[in-house]
Amino acid sequence: MPEALEQDYSQTQLHEVTKALSSGMFVHVRRMLAHMPPCDIAHLLESSPHKSRTVLWQLVDPDLQGETLEELAEDVRNGIIAQMDPALVAAATEEMDDDDFAEVLRSLPDTVYQEVLGSMDKTDQERATVVLSYEEETAGALMSTDTITIRPDVTLDVVLRYLRLKGELPEGTDELYVVDKENKFLGDVQLATLLTKSPSLTVREVMDNESEAIPMSMGESEVAQLFERHNWISAPVIDDNGQLLGRITIDDVVDVIREEAEHSMMSMAGLDDEEDTFAPVVKSTKRRSVWLGVNLVTAILAAFVAGFFESTLGILPILAVLNGIVPSMGGIAGSQTLTLVIRGIAVGHINDANQRWLIGKEIAIGMLNGMIWAVLIATVVALWQWDYKLGLVIAFAMFMNLFAAGCAGVTIPLVLKKLDIDPALAGGVILTTVTDVVGIFAFLGTATYFLLP
Amino acid sequence: MPEALEQDYSQTQLHEVTKALSSGMFVHVRRMLAHMPPCDIAHLLESSPHKSRTVLWQLVDPDLQGETLEELAEDVRNGIIAQMDPALVAAATEEMDDDDFAEVLRSLPDTVYQEVLGSMDKTDQERATVVLSYEEETAGALMSTDTITIRPDVTLDVVLRYLRLKGELPEGTDELYVVDKENKFLGDVQLATLLTKSPSLTVREVMDNESEAIPMSMGESEVAQLFERHNWISAPVIDDNGQLLGRITIDDVVDVIREEAEHSMMSMAGLDDEEDTFAPVVKSTKRRSVWLGVNLVTAILAAFVAGFFESTLGILPILAVLNGIVPSMGGIAGSQTLTLVIRGIAVGHINDANQRWLIGKEIAIGMLNGMIWAVLIATVVALWQWDYKLGLVIAFAMFMNLFAAGCAGVTIPLVLKKLDIDPALAGGVILTTVTDVVGIFAFLGTATYFLLP
Repeated sequence: MPEALEQDYSQTQLHEVTKALSSGMFVHVRRMLAHMPPCDIAHLLESSPHKSRTVLWQLVDPDLQGETLEELAEDVRNGIIAQMDPALVAAATEEMDDDDFAEVLRSLPDTVYQEVLGSMDKTDQERATVVLSYEEETAGALMSTDTITIRPDVTLDVVLRYLRLKGELPEGTDELYVVDKENKFLGDVQLATLLTKSPSLTVREVMDNESEAIPMSMGESEVAQLFERHNWISAPVIDDNGQLLGRITIDDVVDVIREEAEHSMMSMAGLDDEEDTFAPVVKSTKRRSVWLGVNLVTAILAAFVAGFFESTLGILPILAVLNGIVPSMGGIAGSQTLTLVIRGIAVGHINDANQRWLIGKEIAIGMLNGMIWAVLIATVVALWQWDYKLGLVIAFAMFMNLFAAGCAGVTIPLVLKKLDIDPALAGGVILTTVTDVVGIFAFLGTATYFLLP
Repeated sequence: MPEALEQDYSQTQLHEVTKALSSGMFVHVRRMLAHMPPCDIAHLLESSPHKSRTVLWQLVDPDLQGETLEELAEDVRNGIIAQMDPALVAAATEEMDDDDFAEVLRSLPDTVYQEVLGSMDKTDQERATVVLSYEEETAGALMSTDTITIRPDVTLDVVLRYLRLKGELPEGTDELYVVDKENKFLGDVQLATLLTKSPSLTVREVMDNESEAIPMSMGESEVAQLFERHNWISAPVIDDNGQLLGRITIDDVVDVIREEAEHSMMSMAGLDDEEDTFAPVVKSTKRRSVWLGVNLVTAILAAFVAGFFESTLGILPILAVLNGIVPSMGGIAGSQTLTLVIRGIAVGHINDANQRWLIGKEIAIGMLNGMIWAVLIATVVALWQWDYKLGLVIAFAMFMNLFAAGCAGVTIPLVLKKLDIDPALAGGVILTTVTDVVGIFAFLGTATYFLLP
């Protein structure tokens, strides 16, 4: 009987395992784990604090460890591998897809890598050399080599008999690749075509020879965009001479899409996108401190700017009370623009042709925002402090800062991208620096000029 | 000849079309568009400012308009449909998949919807009623009904002849579904199985009857998590009685994954995740103003808190200079925790079992962070202002605020989730309010108590 999934199916399971684990029922946990598919074991490990993770891993059936490692998020996997015996790592990688195999090997510290390599047999050592030869984050590193190739001049009947002889197709196969004698890629034949067309036709007659192949050096985000746009399930990868090297399947692309989308969000908070939610305290603190350090410098810089106006602040302490409002609004408006542009760059919507239009648009929004919120804050402050001059000063500062926020929000990511710096990582800090400095300067500067007795 | 994709293939094309468009060569543009697949036309439209978008749309071959609409992002699609004649909308939706069909119908204003429905033939009107009956953002709304079903007691040979007779399979078909006389789902047979197993076997002998079916009411994010974890290409959808309704394919799931991942990032900046990068200025300004308004209230609240200490600020203006540092650090530390927890909730890693552990961890990080940055800022301020008492005061405030940031960063999203409020949308503002108020209160309060002469 097929089972209908309950909404919280895996949650219940997770809860049970956790309970059994905490009451020390290890045998029970081991039995439960033996009945879970590797993807669910991986999910369970990812959802566990690092201490229970170590215990859980010991209870995973060694035959499932390889597949489970494949399914794990990078950060969690590295943590587990670091505690494993090199010989066990070598054994676990044996059944892995090429792309996961390469990823695991790349994540190993040099000394461990040598030990793991030493525990492998000759074939695996050779495979390691091949998979590591492709540059990271390219189509070559994403692909696996388990493709089925056929020649253009045979009939479908021959192909059908050949497949029946094989008895099994590699997982996720939706098409066979047609190559010539030199292994040059000519086109592909969908499984659906094999099933629906007359067996007496030749491969050449039914193959799709307009089909696009991915060059091995293409970046993984471009690969992901192509898959997404064309609704591909798999795609062939070729080298510079047009020879077929392997294929990329949608499941690996889904990981890239998820990672890319999360990357922007995580980077904007100064986090690594593979950051493990359940990492130990000290490790997490260390990782996050870089970002806090950078921000401290920004904050001190802003304080330094405010320091120019110390005497003004002493005479008019109300300025100190209101001083946070303008920078805060600038930060929000700027980060809206920044986020939109970063997303636009990530999904490939922004290019040289529309860049100028976009800059114009965001600056216009900055000015419009500036006018709206200047009028509002002027009214609030004038009524609150019963001082229309103060209202005018803060209105002017607000307009200037929202205008600056629009300009900075759109140009910073575009410039960073030109310089090949990740806009999601560096953009926020630079933006905040601009909006803080402009905001403080505009407010306290104008106030010093117009309000001092 | 298959063509190897260049890195910037679509970028070049885009650039050419834009150039031709701006020089008014409409005939040329129309010809170029006629040779582009709908997915590339959609990408081009999404990457164009809204004015050129309208012109471009007029130049798209009406036969391709339906498919192009299917590929477009929601916001862009709605903009285009709003300018189309209802009869043309009805014609364009005819060839759409069920899920896109429902999405387009849902996006129409009531009056236009009635007109579009009026232009449809009877069959399409009935289809509209069916697809709209599934709740939005559920498996039912994601699925399409073009499945191929077979009976368990026939031989593969019969199935093969049946498929050959059909001549074509629905796009993205990787498995056939096995149902009984009452259309109850029994299991599935992969196309690969059909190709590799002996034709004399029956469907029952080769089918996977452990295969999981998705209930139609399951939320789309759960569906996406299942696909991602199990590396599915398609999955059957059943109703409460176990009857097969349709299937969900990976391409629609990829859209959900992309949307979900982007949703968090966009929401955190107060943006709609379907926000169109190239929307007109006024529309964008209006959309973003809600968030700026909420933030203004927060900023004024913070100013109000600072207002309690106006006389202190007048006596010690250096406090005004330094007042931004502690809230700023609290905001960053808190948003790191917040982002991590929001991501953890989104990917399903956080549950009742590990929640307490996570809270403990983030509070511990908050305290550790507090100690580190308290010592650092104390040193900087003491040396800068040559005033160790001031250093101690700001150190105390820093510790308190980073501790508060850790507590707030982890509890706010968990509580919001319990209350069924989107943590990505509301979390940031609540967090900033906490870190601003605590930061200002701790710093100016302690200073008033200890430093005033």
